[in-house]
Amino acid sequence: MKIIDIKTFQRVDFINITGEIEKIINDSKVDNGLVCLFVPHTTASLTLNENADPSVKNDIKSKLENLIPKNDNYTHAEGNSDSHLKSSIFGASLTLIISRGRPVLGTWQGIYYCEFDGPRNRKLYIKIIKDNDSI
Amino acid sequence: MKIIDIKTFQRVDFINITGEIEKIINDSKVDNGLVCLFVPHTTASLTLNENADPSVKNDIKSKLENLIPKNDNYTHAEGNSDSHLKSSIFGASLTLIISRGRPVLGTWQGIYYCEFDGPRNRKLYIKIIKDNDSI
Amino acid sequence: MKIIDIKTFQRVDFINITGEIEKIINDSKVDNGLVCLFVPHTTASLTLNENADPSVKNDIKSKLENLIPKNDNYTHAEGNSDSHLKSSIFGASLTLIISRGRPVLGTWQGIYYCEFDGPRNRKLYIKIIKDNDSI
Repeated sequence: MKIIDIKTFQRVDFINITGEIEKIINDSKVDNGLVCLFVPHTTASLTLNENADPSVKNDIKSKLENLIPKNDNYTHAEGNSDSHLKSSIFGASLTLIISRGRPVLGTWQGIYYCEFDGPRNRKLYIKIIKDNDSI
Repeated sequence: MKIIDIKTFQRVDFINITGEIEKIINDSKVDNGLVCLFVPHTTASLTLNENADPSVKNDIKSKLENLIPKNDNYTHAEGNSDSHLKSSIFGASLTLIISRGRPVLGTWQGIYYCEFDGPRNRKLYIKIIKDNDSI
Repeated sequence: MKIIDIKTFQRVDFINITGEIEKIINDSKVDNGLVCLFVPHTTASLTLNENADPSVKNDIKSKLENLIPKNDNYTHAEGNSDSHLKSSIFGASLTLIISRGRPVLGTWQGIYYCEFDGPRNRKLYIKIIKDNDSI
């Protein structure tokens, strides 16, 4: 398992980590298999979404905030219940296919590390499973 | 990795692909393992839900539309920011268990390809990992 | 594949199953790999979230109920369309990394079985894939 550090800069921040994941898979020399990406935090997540026009990311962030605002009738004293819910909605685990030494992604897909209670220093865990039945 | 084509017919359309996935797993002759289903698009997803009464699918689609309408205060010029958010909420990657040559599903579960910005011609990627430790 | 029984006690109930999953992985003697947890029901899910302060769980449940109430303009006659939508949002499949004989989790992460239409007797399926390339 590999562990990498991710730095986030805003309370809600989506960091494109596609390049880091491609490099780790390339370095592993695994040509075919699966990669499981895992966020060991309860107010962060992973998602796949548009890598081109940044307005998509901004619309996603603002609509999420509109549905699940930071301040609402929450009881948790830390003031980040919205972040916990957003984390469960987007999910902390993401499995991708590895083919020809690369994570399989569509043309417009980027892998995003989603911060919902930043800025913080975060971790990402990466586990690659080689498919021994493929040549 | 296998790639199949999925045709969607409405802007928001949930296509039951359980039969296609069962066939691909059966053809692979893998009895035990995992299968990763992956959508290489940023306005589509995968989900598991009820395969019997179509009113469930319709209620899910209309309640989602009510929460995240097509038209809102979005800035992305393509007019499909709602579709991008719905894609991240449902998720583009789905891992299932293979047992006795079939994807493990509950009695009422179907595998759905979820279109949020159709109609379109879509792709689905399928990777099967054989469990070499099971007999 | 292992199957375990989960009992839920309320209509919406989040059961911490971390201990059960740790025990199953420990019993399997697999030190490194992946584990896929799978819910074979269409009104239940899995999620990772805070294992310490129970107010987080309560805030998540009440905000979800506020966004997707039990009673709304649904057509499905069983009166649980909200539960089906919540199940798709949180997801019925969860993949975790196994390292040193344990599921990899952050300090504050617990694995929750999420009931959205209980109380019921539920099942959880668990499949472990050993990583034969790790020592």
